Amino acid sequence: MFQNFTSPSSPDQGPARLAALRVWMDEQTLNGFIVPRADRHQGEYVAACDERLSWLTGFTGSAGFACVLEDIAGVFIDGRYRLQVLDQVADVFIPVHWPETQLQDWLIIKAQPGAVIGFDPRLHTVSQIETLRDRLTASGITLRACPNGVNAIWRDRPGPPLAAAWSHPESLSGEAAANKARRIGADITALGADAAVITLPDSLCWLLNIRGSDVPRTPIVQGFAILSSSGAIALFGDPAKFDSLEFSENVTLMGWGAFEAYLSKFKDRMLIDPASLPQAALQALEQGAVKILRGTDPCALSKACKNTTELNGSRAAHLRDGAAMVNFMAWFDGADPSNLSEIDIVRKLEGFRAATNVLHDISFDTISGSGPHGAVVHYSVTHETNRKLDSDSLLLVDSGGQYHDGTTDITRTLPLGTPSLEMRQAFTRVLQGMIAISQVRFPKGLTGRDLDSLARAPLWAAGQDYDHGTGHGVGSFLSVHEGPQRLSRATDVPLEVGMILSNEPGYYRAGAFGVRIENLIVVQPAPNLPDGDDRAMLEFETITLAPIDLQLIEASLLTVREKEWLNAYHQEVHAKLTQLLDATTAQWLANATAAI
Amino acid sequence: MFQNFTSPSSPDQGPARLAALRVWMDEQTLNGFIVPRADRHQGEYVAACDERLSWLTGFTGSAGFACVLEDIAGVFIDGRYRLQVLDQVADVFIPVHWPETQLQDWLIIKAQPGAVIGFDPRLHTVSQIETLRDRLTASGITLRACPNGVNAIWRDRPGPPLAAAWSHPESLSGEAAANKARRIGADITALGADAAVITLPDSLCWLLNIRGSDVPRTPIVQGFAILSSSGAIALFGDPAKFDSLEFSENVTLMGWGAFEAYLSKFKDRMLIDPASLPQAALQALEQGAVKILRGTDPCALSKACKNTTELNGSRAAHLRDGAAMVNFMAWFDGADPSNLSEIDIVRKLEGFRAATNVLHDISFDTISGSGPHGAVVHYSVTHETNRKLDSDSLLLVDSGGQYHDGTTDITRTLPLGTPSLEMRQAFTRVLQGMIAISQVRFPKGLTGRDLDSLARAPLWAAGQDYDHGTGHGVGSFLSVHEGPQRLSRATDVPLEVGMILSNEPGYYRAGAFGVRIENLIVVQPAPNLPDGDDRAMLEFETITLAPIDLQLIEASLLTVREKEWLNAYHQEVHAKLTQLLDATTAQWLANATAAI
Repeated sequence: MFQNFTSPSSPDQGPARLAALRVWMDEQTLNGFIVPRADRHQGEYVAACDERLSWLTGFTGSAGFACVLEDIAGVFIDGRYRLQVLDQVADVFIPVHWPETQLQDWLIIKAQPGAVIGFDPRLHTVSQIETLRDRLTASGITLRACPNGVNAIWRDRPGPPLAAAWSHPESLSGEAAANKARRIGADITALGADAAVITLPDSLCWLLNIRGSDVPRTPIVQGFAILSSSGAIALFGDPAKFDSLEFSENVTLMGWGAFEAYLSKFKDRMLIDPASLPQAALQALEQGAVKILRGTDPCALSKACKNTTELNGSRAAHLRDGAAMVNFMAWFDGADPSNLSEIDIVRKLEGFRAATNVLHDISFDTISGSGPHGAVVHYSVTHETNRKLDSDSLLLVDSGGQYHDGTTDITRTLPLGTPSLEMRQAFTRVLQGMIAISQVRFPKGLTGRDLDSLARAPLWAAGQDYDHGTGHGVGSFLSVHEGPQRLSRATDVPLEVGMILSNEPGYYRAGAFGVRIENLIVVQPAPNLPDGDDRAMLEFETITLAPIDLQLIEASLLTVREKEWLNAYHQEVHAKLTQLLDATTAQWLANATAAI
Repeated sequence: MFQNFTSPSSPDQGPARLAALRVWMDEQTLNGFIVPRADRHQGEYVAACDERLSWLTGFTGSAGFACVLEDIAGVFIDGRYRLQVLDQVADVFIPVHWPETQLQDWLIIKAQPGAVIGFDPRLHTVSQIETLRDRLTASGITLRACPNGVNAIWRDRPGPPLAAAWSHPESLSGEAAANKARRIGADITALGADAAVITLPDSLCWLLNIRGSDVPRTPIVQGFAILSSSGAIALFGDPAKFDSLEFSENVTLMGWGAFEAYLSKFKDRMLIDPASLPQAALQALEQGAVKILRGTDPCALSKACKNTTELNGSRAAHLRDGAAMVNFMAWFDGADPSNLSEIDIVRKLEGFRAATNVLHDISFDTISGSGPHGAVVHYSVTHETNRKLDSDSLLLVDSGGQYHDGTTDITRTLPLGTPSLEMRQAFTRVLQGMIAISQVRFPKGLTGRDLDSLARAPLWAAGQDYDHGTGHGVGSFLSVHEGPQRLSRATDVPLEVGMILSNEPGYYRAGAFGVRIENLIVVQPAPNLPDGDDRAMLEFETITLAPIDLQLIEASLLTVREKEWLNAYHQEVHAKLTQLLDATTAQWLANATAAI
């Protein structure tokens, strides 16, 4: 369940593995081969057998890919991994800054006209391949679907995950699986289709009310499904994993191998989501007489809008998780930071969450960034990077738990010694942005894009900003990063009642310190106001419960209304958590939530 | 120059004219004909000869169209004109709520499969016709380009506007026309084209440094142009209008009639803007061997980003216009409102602007809305609607001037008697939204969409909102509504230095009152701040100068920072305008701009 702080790849093996891959390419008459980090489900986490990118190159980041040509091999990494990749890959691999440099542009420069680049069509989406093909049209470079070259040369490749799936009961999901299938089936009909392909595991798990242990941190079981408009489901996966489950009679279980054959025989109107469907599935469909409709995964929006049972579960999880956080924060407040390292922080916090006795897993690797490490937005501490906590600085802790009733994700920034005025001012502006989202009422129909700026305006006023979205969707005992809901300039999805999102503005001063404050929030209908218009409006309910450090707040920067929010929030935190704490910690919480 | 408060259409003539159009349709073997409000330049104002929609139907709104079938005739009008249309059209015309009902959907219900609908391809854009054709594909209804049926039956149709164009000197435009042509020509090359079609008159006038009197309120001369990548310009229009101008040698003047022939012989790569190009021009191009590139009008963005000379001109115009506004407001403050009508207000304000002795025209018909009329967003007073000013209510005055050095647009909401607490609270929230935009700093690259919510959040907090954008672009002695810059959810154009926009949140309580406060603002680089990031940021310079009524402000709702803005703004208004006022008015201004 817990982190081991190692970098599991073997960069020293890179040159030999690269050479072996090139021999394979030559046998296949390929001039290149693309190795993505993703598996066929396009999720954030992959199983050990799918860690092809790190096996080949040494690079262990959560996004990116390699493209191997005959005389050069590029590892494409985004801004988060610019430094990490230098430590992890041998110099036969050339880091390429992505998305600034797109694969097609790199290929046009590095490959010869006439070059044939292989790719495994099960690991790339329809959109990816179509975009790449489109942009390579004029270059004379072509793409060829082929077997997976890394599979071919990876002799001791682990087997696929085998752990059994389990039922996620209606007492937690709030809706019978058969009902979900009928409901989404009706949506498919309304879209003019007869069936839809489901390849996202969290959609599959939501639809079938099941969970599993196929990847770390996210309790999913992998599989594909064809959901018919009638509600019938053809489920493709490893039958052994589903042995103990009793599906209702609308579900027919088949092996992985039957999936593409099934698609190739499908004759009616099939809804696909090109952003997630493997290119291989489209190829299979196109062998038959199917009419293809393009859209988005039909489960995604329903999954995002949690029902009352799921929301109550999430509130219960946040109560429990909040108590664990308070135990951690109270312990930290009394500890001597000069004796502590970033890893100590992670372990201690894991311990408090484990002590709830119902923690299934952490929901992602804890970010424990002291001083300058706090400015690394996705910092992941290892034994190599671990450092003693700084004095007179900040500690940024971003963590979460997977509980059967809900997924949590919380960031608190804590003081070390006596943080500077600059740090406190930045903390206060970040808090103002977080409060702006917490307090906002807005007309129904708006998207997270329309709210994102409200969280930034206090930082903008000081000439500051942060280079990530303000919030992401969060699942219900599923992925801690869930679509389609977001608070970000990169979304056009209207916010709907029941969506859970994070609210996490930040500020990062490279080489110095980082600030982030994160609560989870739920979209709720806003009650009518006496002088208000006759228009439907929404607001956010905050479900994360943990104090926000008062020592870091420059109260003179806050408006009356901001102080009112903070005091009311702290009052709620105190009222709800006290009963779950021992007397000493309860007293600590009373102080930590005193009105300002 | 000034308003005459009449409704110039003849609704009683509607039935006979409709019958005549149907006879013409029959002769042409058409089952329908579309009559748009637009002329071939797609501007907001049209010349008398282009007032086909109002001539046929009686409807005088600034947007909309009619579609005449053999047994029904629909007049498509947007939310602004729901009531007005009922008074203006005879009952042979059926009002259709648009865009809620789209033309294609109405046609599919009202026309028979096989119906042929005529349209004048000079009056519809490429995008309009392509969208309509696309959506009618499955219906069996077809569109046919044809001569204009209204022209055919309108016996006493006025001739085209004849007034001479004049040169807009470099002392006002800040850049020689030949230089603009070379610069935009280079942009056309960079876009991969050899020439571009310019059909928007404000682009043409900007490009050639000319102005004219072809339509009311906007000082444009109508014409088309082909701008080559070399900077050569083929200008098509009425040669007599251009007689007195001395174009530089890159300009070749031709008559209107030569335009389509010229296009049909063009052989290279032509850039067109499908959102404004008449369908007839595309048809002409397609007769030749041209390669068509689609994009946006290549002048639009450069025109929107005003140079130093244009900005200085605009500041001078706003100084003058602000003094006229203060004279008006001081007069109003001393007048007995019970003796005044909405039309009196318009005339008085026109008089103060005219007294500057350099007013070219008003920039649009003044909106003078007392009491419930203030809630009609685009209210246009006529002798029929004119009413005495309400007591204990609000007067909304939205007006502007066209001066040779700049275009102004300002809204102030003024108290009548003792406005209610509800009105003052709404006024204050609108002011808070306007201040939020006035004060915001934001990273370069953002669009008006990313800022729009900042102006609404104070109203949202009270359950209120307004159903229009927060701001539109404004031209330099050109259109008071200029693209592509906007503050609105309907834009994806990044804000750039030199753009002039309006900042005009509002609040409207139907049947009761309306509030709007509007200043014009200029996008400017924001200076670096001591603790700020190393990132380019922008801010707004406010150029409108007139006090905001202090009696309507509930000061307790304002934050310290909002009060600081208001006091600093009023101080600037006072400092800049006092010298332009007589002693009594200067004293009035001193009181009106006192610090709160």
